[in-house]
Amino acid sequence: VTEFELIRLLKPALPGNDQVVDGAGDDCAVLDLGAPGMVTLLKTDAVVEGVHFESGESPVRIGHKAMGRCLSDMAAMGGLPVAAVVTLGLPEGWHPDRIEGIYQGLCALAARWRTAVVGGEVTRNPGGLFINVCLVGSATRESVVRRAGASPGDGIFVTGELGGSLEGRHLDFEPRLAEGRWLAEGGWASSMIDLSDGLAGDLPHLLEASGGIGAELRMESIPVSRAAKLRGARGDMARPPLLAALCDGEDFELLFTVRPGKAVALLDGWKAAFPSVRLTCIGRIETKPGVRLREGTGFRPMPGGGFEHFAGVEGN
Amino acid sequence: VTEFELIRLLKPALPGNDQVVDGAGDDCAVLDLGAPGMVTLLKTDAVVEGVHFESGESPVRIGHKAMGRCLSDMAAMGGLPVAAVVTLGLPEGWHPDRIEGIYQGLCALAARWRTAVVGGEVTRNPGGLFINVCLVGSATRESVVRRAGASPGDGIFVTGELGGSLEGRHLDFEPRLAEGRWLAEGGWASSMIDLSDGLAGDLPHLLEASGGIGAELRMESIPVSRAAKLRGARGDMARPPLLAALCDGEDFELLFTVRPGKAVALLDGWKAAFPSVRLTCIGRIETKPGVRLREGTGFRPMPGGGFEHFAGVEGN
Repeated sequence: VTEFELIRLLKPALPGNDQVVDGAGDDCAVLDLGAPGMVTLLKTDAVVEGVHFESGESPVRIGHKAMGRCLSDMAAMGGLPVAAVVTLGLPEGWHPDRIEGIYQGLCALAARWRTAVVGGEVTRNPGGLFINVCLVGSATRESVVRRAGASPGDGIFVTGELGGSLEGRHLDFEPRLAEGRWLAEGGWASSMIDLSDGLAGDLPHLLEASGGIGAELRMESIPVSRAAKLRGARGDMARPPLLAALCDGEDFELLFTVRPGKAVALLDGWKAAFPSVRLTCIGRIETKPGVRLREGTGFRPMPGGGFEHFAGVEGN
Repeated sequence: VTEFELIRLLKPALPGNDQVVDGAGDDCAVLDLGAPGMVTLLKTDAVVEGVHFESGESPVRIGHKAMGRCLSDMAAMGGLPVAAVVTLGLPEGWHPDRIEGIYQGLCALAARWRTAVVGGEVTRNPGGLFINVCLVGSATRESVVRRAGASPGDGIFVTGELGGSLEGRHLDFEPRLAEGRWLAEGGWASSMIDLSDGLAGDLPHLLEASGGIGAELRMESIPVSRAAKLRGARGDMARPPLLAALCDGEDFELLFTVRPGKAVALLDGWKAAFPSVRLTCIGRIETKPGVRLREGTGFRPMPGGGFEHFAGVEGN
């Protein structure tokens, strides 16, 4: 069962109430808790030993990743993170020093984004280390950006460079919170999602949420990371760099759409606000469903499925 | 490492911000998200296969317990639950039917308390089933009841009956949400905690949070459950019923204190509001630190430690 099948299966039966603005299915849930003009964003996410990190990994990096994944989802809604709570599931014989390391990684990243860590839970988990982070954030009601909202004609943009995250970025990435807020508050993005399942995996989620529309991507515009190129050259994990950029998971970059008339102004504003962060227009939203990959004057088939986390588990 | 040692170790280094009203250390964290006169309560909690339930347990009961534990913490602060997000860590080969069962248990209880389920996460967890629930609730700022707040002279009260939860209650309990809200909104409770680690384990947390004061309990007043008495008679888990009532974990009853002048009015009001729920005054808060167990005209030593979850893991 994938997460998406599960959501489809379970969503109709989930209880709601009149404080729910958006329930399951986006990067964060959206709640109305009564603050005038504001909404509350809520996200939960876990990293698991042997699935999202290797057993020998540094506790500090594991903690960083656990917090970073939630913050990246907050970024993708244009939210401001407020507070997190943490659940640690510990295998037998875990040394307190390693717990401190995890908290160091969690807290250093949280503190950098003025996110409080307000509690937690510790339990045993016989099979291995399990860290769940639940994050609360806030945003003005009008500024929230969703997966739904893209329209035919919109340009498709992506921050940073894609692919090869397993070379290290998946443990060390800085969530695009400043960029996400800037895009949301400036009203630039008509829809947005963070790239955790790879461009080929996440773009279809945005298209489906936006009403089953499609997209054309220009192959030569895809920003391929140095890590993806390196990976292409390494015997043990060899993969063509473009395929890595399309299909590797855990880029934790932002994928978003922009109304056609705004693209030039966006690129100008972006350069002034984030001079060191690459922003690329990689294609265009179209009415016809599906994703097409344009190469020169022809088309290539888009690689299907598309997510590949550390051990092949999908997430969001 | 126990959870309490861990909190002591880590708490000083946890990042905060000006939206945090109460950080780690109570049944829920308390946040100010800008709703006039209101605060937001936040709790995360996990149940794990082989720790909080046996491998063959019914998925519906497991889901009920996972949601119920968080709701019980919400009850202990006097909060109104609003929305929950769920993380499922699944071992290999889990059948979708069992996932549906878990969600049935989670959602039926949530729906009964008008709590929305607004999202979740699914990942693998090689060692066994792991369910984390994170719950957001709200309360008026003045009504929130904390572990801190008990004073010498206050009466000590407990809802329901104690001990023997392993006989079944730990999987089927109904969280005391209505009772918790009634106590909070009526201003009855000067301090409150939910009993997850047993009376002997949780009363010291309340006393410590309230400034290191003490308590005297009247042995003959402790409401011993039928299950605790049955357990005392069963060869395989034999334990004197009173010891079970003091030390068994996962009662999920409310333990709270009441200013001395209010006790009679409380008992009257309670009988009208909750005619079928037992409420017992079990003792009194005292200046002298420690818990003393009065038997007739003498004292018995209070059994130490005091928590005993399904497989000996402490939680809160």
